[in-house]
Amino acid sequence: MSILELAKTMNHNLENSISLLTRTPATLDALLRGLPDEWTLSNEGENTWSAFDIVGHLIHCERADWMPRTKWLLKFGDSRPFEPFDRLGHIRESQGKQLPQLLDEFTAIRAENLCELRAMNLHPEDLSRTGRHPALGAVTLSELLAAWAAHDLNHIHQMSRVMARQYREAVGPFRQYMGVMQCAAHGG
Amino acid sequence: MSILELAKTMNHNLENSISLLTRTPATLDALLRGLPDEWTLSNEGENTWSAFDIVGHLIHCERADWMPRTKWLLKFGDSRPFEPFDRLGHIRESQGKQLPQLLDEFTAIRAENLCELRAMNLHPEDLSRTGRHPALGAVTLSELLAAWAAHDLNHIHQMSRVMARQYREAVGPFRQYMGVMQCAAHGG
Repeated sequence: MSILELAKTMNHNLENSISLLTRTPATLDALLRGLPDEWTLSNEGENTWSAFDIVGHLIHCERADWMPRTKWLLKFGDSRPFEPFDRLGHIRESQGKQLPQLLDEFTAIRAENLCELRAMNLHPEDLSRTGRHPALGAVTLSELLAAWAAHDLNHIHQMSRVMARQYREAVGPFRQYMGVMQCAAHGG
Repeated sequence: MSILELAKTMNHNLENSISLLTRTPATLDALLRGLPDEWTLSNEGENTWSAFDIVGHLIHCERADWMPRTKWLLKFGDSRPFEPFDRLGHIRESQGKQLPQLLDEFTAIRAENLCELRAMNLHPEDLSRTGRHPALGAVTLSELLAAWAAHDLNHIHQMSRVMARQYREAVGPFRQYMGVMQCAAHGG
């Protein structure tokens, strides 16, 4: 079975994931760099995230989540659970920094990680290996890597919602035509 | 009252809207150009939109919605309702085209429209003028222009959801951590 065939049976094509993962830093750069603070630093209320926070979180995930867990899984299989991930770790990551710096850091670390991922030259049998998530239990490497890509989309989704909320009043009656204004956070 | 002051009372700063509107074409270009068709041509099921369809819709709105309505409002006030907008107009707009061409068209027409908007040199008294939306009734020019910007975010939100849905199965148990996978369409 080729890697393509196996990946298709899992609805996951690793090349498609890498294509998306490659583009996210430039996407966020194009959207956010130079944008007024009203857009990038505003959140949805107490204990919610701004676009700035989200970029910090994405950097933290590059350092502490996706690639470290990939390596952990390949090393320990399901014999040892992944290290827990600190969902507030981005606060340290972002402290004292400005958004342009975070955008630069995200671009650099994502590129490094994808370079490392490609160098691993993963085979179908690697992708079907199972690791242990501390909360979710058994997950395959394929699921972990697909989640890395989908997680980018999840946070683009969140970011567009957070930013749109800043115009909730400004758009007046047009609000009812905009799904994004009705979107609940769904936990992120 | 300066334009800045009046705009702030409406929670709408026209320069902030223009900042965002300026960035959307490059954002979509960075995300979508060269991305595999599985991401860009897949939708959420019958009569739903793919990323390709969304870009076509944004072009159609540039031609037939925001700027034409801005001019209409300034010409007729609320004495004549805006022309109805064809929500399926993007189908004609996109026919026989490839995504890179649509991305180029969106970039060009958005730049033209923003150039024209800036040349209008709108004053606070213009922004507070009222027009008549065929379905929503009275809307101010400020609301119309804020809606133009928020509409970009609405469709980035939709696009990230449509794309994430393609990985609904692939991410396995990680699905429950991703709000985007739980997001209902909210009508777009």
